[in-house]
Amino acid sequence: MSAMDQDQALTAILDPRSVAIVGASDDTAKWGGSILALLRKFHYAGAVYAVNPRSASVQGVASFASVEAIGQPVDVAVLAVPHERAVAAMQDCVRAGVKGVLMVTSQFAEAGEEGRALQDELVAIARAGGVRIIGPNCMGYFNSHADLCLLNSQALMRSDVLTRGRIALISQSGALAGAMLARACDLGVGLSFCVSLGNQADLEVCDFFEYAIADPHSQVIALYVEGLKDPSRFRSLLLQARAAGKPVLLVKAGRTDAGTRAVQSHTASMAGSYQSFAAVVRSAGAVVVDDYLDLVVHAAAWSTLPAPSSAKVAVMSGSGGGGAVACDQVAEGQLQVASLGSATVQALEPLMPQSCAHVPFDLGAVPGSYRSARANWLQDVLVTMMADPEVGAGIYVMTTQPDMAGAAAAVQAVNRLSGKPLLFVNAASSSGAEAEAVMRAHAQVSFASVEQAVRFLSDRLAAQREHALAAPPQAPQPVASGQLEAITRTFDDGLIAEHQAKQLFAAVGIPVTRGEVADSADAAVRVAAAIGYPVVMKVVSAQISHKSDIGGVVVGVADEAGVRRHFAALQAAVAKVPGAGFDGCLVQQMARADAELLVGTHWDEQFGPMLMFGFGGTLVELQRDTALLPATANQAQIGEALSRLRLYPLLTGFRGRPAADLVKLVDLIWRMGQMAVQLGARLAECEANPVMVQGASVLVADARAVWRKS
Amino acid sequence: MSAMDQDQALTAILDPRSVAIVGASDDTAKWGGSILALLRKFHYAGAVYAVNPRSASVQGVASFASVEAIGQPVDVAVLAVPHERAVAAMQDCVRAGVKGVLMVTSQFAEAGEEGRALQDELVAIARAGGVRIIGPNCMGYFNSHADLCLLNSQALMRSDVLTRGRIALISQSGALAGAMLARACDLGVGLSFCVSLGNQADLEVCDFFEYAIADPHSQVIALYVEGLKDPSRFRSLLLQARAAGKPVLLVKAGRTDAGTRAVQSHTASMAGSYQSFAAVVRSAGAVVVDDYLDLVVHAAAWSTLPAPSSAKVAVMSGSGGGGAVACDQVAEGQLQVASLGSATVQALEPLMPQSCAHVPFDLGAVPGSYRSARANWLQDVLVTMMADPEVGAGIYVMTTQPDMAGAAAAVQAVNRLSGKPLLFVNAASSSGAEAEAVMRAHAQVSFASVEQAVRFLSDRLAAQREHALAAPPQAPQPVASGQLEAITRTFDDGLIAEHQAKQLFAAVGIPVTRGEVADSADAAVRVAAAIGYPVVMKVVSAQISHKSDIGGVVVGVADEAGVRRHFAALQAAVAKVPGAGFDGCLVQQMARADAELLVGTHWDEQFGPMLMFGFGGTLVELQRDTALLPATANQAQIGEALSRLRLYPLLTGFRGRPAADLVKLVDLIWRMGQMAVQLGARLAECEANPVMVQGASVLVADARAVWRKS
Repeated sequence: MSAMDQDQALTAILDPRSVAIVGASDDTAKWGGSILALLRKFHYAGAVYAVNPRSASVQGVASFASVEAIGQPVDVAVLAVPHERAVAAMQDCVRAGVKGVLMVTSQFAEAGEEGRALQDELVAIARAGGVRIIGPNCMGYFNSHADLCLLNSQALMRSDVLTRGRIALISQSGALAGAMLARACDLGVGLSFCVSLGNQADLEVCDFFEYAIADPHSQVIALYVEGLKDPSRFRSLLLQARAAGKPVLLVKAGRTDAGTRAVQSHTASMAGSYQSFAAVVRSAGAVVVDDYLDLVVHAAAWSTLPAPSSAKVAVMSGSGGGGAVACDQVAEGQLQVASLGSATVQALEPLMPQSCAHVPFDLGAVPGSYRSARANWLQDVLVTMMADPEVGAGIYVMTTQPDMAGAAAAVQAVNRLSGKPLLFVNAASSSGAEAEAVMRAHAQVSFASVEQAVRFLSDRLAAQREHALAAPPQAPQPVASGQLEAITRTFDDGLIAEHQAKQLFAAVGIPVTRGEVADSADAAVRVAAAIGYPVVMKVVSAQISHKSDIGGVVVGVADEAGVRRHFAALQAAVAKVPGAGFDGCLVQQMARADAELLVGTHWDEQFGPMLMFGFGGTLVELQRDTALLPATANQAQIGEALSRLRLYPLLTGFRGRPAADLVKLVDLIWRMGQMAVQLGARLAECEANPVMVQGASVLVADARAVWRKS
Repeated sequence: MSAMDQDQALTAILDPRSVAIVGASDDTAKWGGSILALLRKFHYAGAVYAVNPRSASVQGVASFASVEAIGQPVDVAVLAVPHERAVAAMQDCVRAGVKGVLMVTSQFAEAGEEGRALQDELVAIARAGGVRIIGPNCMGYFNSHADLCLLNSQALMRSDVLTRGRIALISQSGALAGAMLARACDLGVGLSFCVSLGNQADLEVCDFFEYAIADPHSQVIALYVEGLKDPSRFRSLLLQARAAGKPVLLVKAGRTDAGTRAVQSHTASMAGSYQSFAAVVRSAGAVVVDDYLDLVVHAAAWSTLPAPSSAKVAVMSGSGGGGAVACDQVAEGQLQVASLGSATVQALEPLMPQSCAHVPFDLGAVPGSYRSARANWLQDVLVTMMADPEVGAGIYVMTTQPDMAGAAAAVQAVNRLSGKPLLFVNAASSSGAEAEAVMRAHAQVSFASVEQAVRFLSDRLAAQREHALAAPPQAPQPVASGQLEAITRTFDDGLIAEHQAKQLFAAVGIPVTRGEVADSADAAVRVAAAIGYPVVMKVVSAQISHKSDIGGVVVGVADEAGVRRHFAALQAAVAKVPGAGFDGCLVQQMARADAELLVGTHWDEQFGPMLMFGFGGTLVELQRDTALLPATANQAQIGEALSRLRLYPLLTGFRGRPAADLVKLVDLIWRMGQMAVQLGARLAECEANPVMVQGASVLVADARAVWRKS
């Protein structure tokens, strides 16, 4: 189906001229009853038909024996009939020329083989008839801008209005769509549309994601994702959303082994590698949120608050203690605690004693005479503080204090006036209900905790950083293409030995230690003499991947006698490993290092080549000090990720060490990524480890790769 | 004041027979009005007197010209008069024989020098007259079991009842006491007593902490702490609370530099080192919580839920997606995701198809026929799952689902029946209000998020672990006491050189590398020959603390020629450092290491000797892989903390390395702590770095200390 056809189909589904409820019922405890009731409650303006052969009217709506019997165009049909009647109902819809079918019932693919076969049959009928399907096994969808509600949720049943808004919410879980909607209702946040996808027999996350990018009503896109049907389409949509200036926030289930098992037993989605998923999402400037309820809060705040201008956060509170703890939480969240410049302190002079003119600002400490001296005292104070160029964002922590509603009114005004975000935290629980109502009335978010506010700011700043780093997508660099192919032509399937892997690296311009394989002690002595002492000696064996684990690496061999002695010892070490053959010794230039890094790539099933780098050499797993990026990452992105590693100071002159040549190191990492892009799936993985860095010297001392011919 | 007098005074204050409100008013917008109104609203049964010379009755209560004029015993007087009338009011209270005075007004020590002088005067009058003071500059206190409310909070103004409970809440911030109370009211959680301490002119955190330990109504103790007046008393109270079986949970403000500055400007409390504070608190089995609102939730859950029997958590939810995300959050929170044993699966057979009998449990996936087959279906399911010996705790995630109140009723019943905690998370927002009401009616907590529930479990398990590790407080070991004193007698103030520090270590049984200082190349050659090659050579200079930073350490010196060459080079290196003298070379046994650790102590201003250890040798600051304990820690506590370090696997046979002798290493660390306890404040700091560990060899290769004679 072409993109234009697809867009027309989704428009017909989300903004239909007419809807039929197949299985309509007077009993609102049934799906066919509750959906019809919801549709009418929110005053959908299109035509509504009931389909129920046993009644002439349902809930006061004219009822027909079949969709075909309606005799008028029907854009959307809701199938609220048991699965055993689904085929007949679908055939009816095809005959009637329905454009989209919403299938809410279960007992399809999620319930086993029989259900899957039935689902496949329905999809085949629909495809042949030009009908698109949402579901089955889902909660439905709504489009607030069309007053169309086909989503069966407790929160909507309890609500009198289908609030319009700018957030598109797309969820692979119906129950979580319901939970997120309930939170949105409590916050007074409207959505543009919301869809629960169920089994995704036909339409899936990416279809609605694409629609949201084009939809003028949707300005922020929020997703709950379990697994992806088409990862590369998803990735390209992330980039399209970025280009369209629409923030994307998402929660992923299946981040850990336990969560992945749970997802698989839940919807049989393949969760894929979460690390790769998160790396791809973040590098596209989108945001990963841990919790689905926070997702709603973050999306709402994103859609209403101005962007922070820096990571320096000013804290204001009605409480000295509340301000102090908030400063701790800001600093613990890797943001900076702002302070006020002297011009701001001066500007505050008419508003408070100088002893109070600082952040964290404790408004409770200002004598009442100042506070009552002018009508908008608090608003004036907050505007003045936020205007300080050293303040990038603010957090207002409202503890139980007099005139909480007034404080909320001031905060929302400041958000309109200052051009920087002032986040409102209600720490007063239900005592702050009136203040929350003020925020809601101004379509602004109350955060539930300082921690939640800090995470929002931190995520938004990270996304802004990524946007600044991202260049237009680069075409893969044709680095020494012919040479690469010539080298890899000789590769067998499986583990590639060090010297071959280094050939590959050298071909793309990655500096490697000089060295040669020697098959005898005499040959080793000749090689060592040519390189110059001291040298490193390493076992060469097709069967041994981690040489240092068997004592197969000797550094600092100082002279000819040493070379002969170690040649014999290494040969003996290999002999002790069952099944391993001795293919000689690699005699190598010895590189010194103030820092040892690992740089590697692997082919991800979903997202293709990924680039990993970090500190620790052979201890890299324990160190857990690595970055993961798509292998297409540019040098700015690589440099930024490198600078966020814990041991990064080792490269910048830590305790008298020479500063490393960062340009050279970043270039090395970038070339590794580009090589992986070019070699594609054949390069299952490769690793330069250690990369020895000392001042201007950046050298790959050891390397390995895994090749997959097919 | 003796402990018994103190206890009597606090009992008179918290459970008085009579209360006078000085400055009583009909205007409830004033302190003297609102406190009188609150006192009456909750039906305090003792005598209540108003003191206001301008009226005969206030709010219908007989009013007197002074406290003395009441002519009846008055246990507590609330001074709600401006600070300029405070002295006269206090004198009146002394004359009337009042036992405790609550001072709510401000403009005292927190407002500058003048206020501090006035506060000191009041304290002097009170001390002379045998009167205790709470405040000034505070919000007051209440004791629910005496129906006594003298706490001016929005939440209590909005509440009809002063709910009785088992949590003592002691807060250095009045506003945060108010915020925490508001959260407690929303949760339906009662407190035994609550006190806001303000300036702590007389009574302070520790006084009420001590009272709570003895108070039979208080079973859980929650504290908000900014700074401590008497750290050693605080520490001993933590141990008393542990001995009494009363959990202590606390929030500390001033955890970061920014928070510390904020605390100091707020109440002029000295925040002290947060790291030491947290180490002392945790080692006493108490819990540090980051956020004051979470503190209330955690304390409430602790007081009502049974203890988890292990870190294996079973997740149950009405949603497959909700269960999957919860599993991710459990695993990310360093807990384990439980699975059900075959006996449990069998026991579930009458309740659901076998395909549903697993955790995470998705109750929405169970066909309706099973669910409606028996009255207490959900409760029976949950009880059966929780009974599995592989399940240590459970989390029930309620998304918007049918019969949420029924689900809550089942969960609370399971908590009574199963002997393990099943945490209830309301993910349905206000749609779950009825369910929350059910939990409240059964005095059980609704968690606001899975993350909050996971943190609670994780904190509680950590506290249980600490309780298991803690032995009765050890008397400091008199390790080589005389010898230590003999060695330190020669120490000057300031930096202690390596060989002297090693003497100290050796005296307490810590293994150090052999070595000797040589003042000439010839002497160095003699020492090296005696030790055996290869050797390590190090600069000795009183002015140089970090030798390796100036190239002052050479390892692997192989022969006599090497010793001579390096002696000259080291002498030259010192010559380049301005102001440094060359005191010779330390020639030393060379130790090999698979892991290099740092073990050190320092004297904390508040808590005395602290013990720090971790991986990284000279990179220890970057590695951030260290543990901090009180130096009194026992070997079990040291072993546990060691095992939680990131690089710990280096000691247990990582990648073919020999496993380290952990007993020897833990003993080394323990001896370092014992030495610091014995030397006291004189040992400002000391450090063994690196401690070289390879298999059975555990050796201190370098050492330094800072001595403070006075």
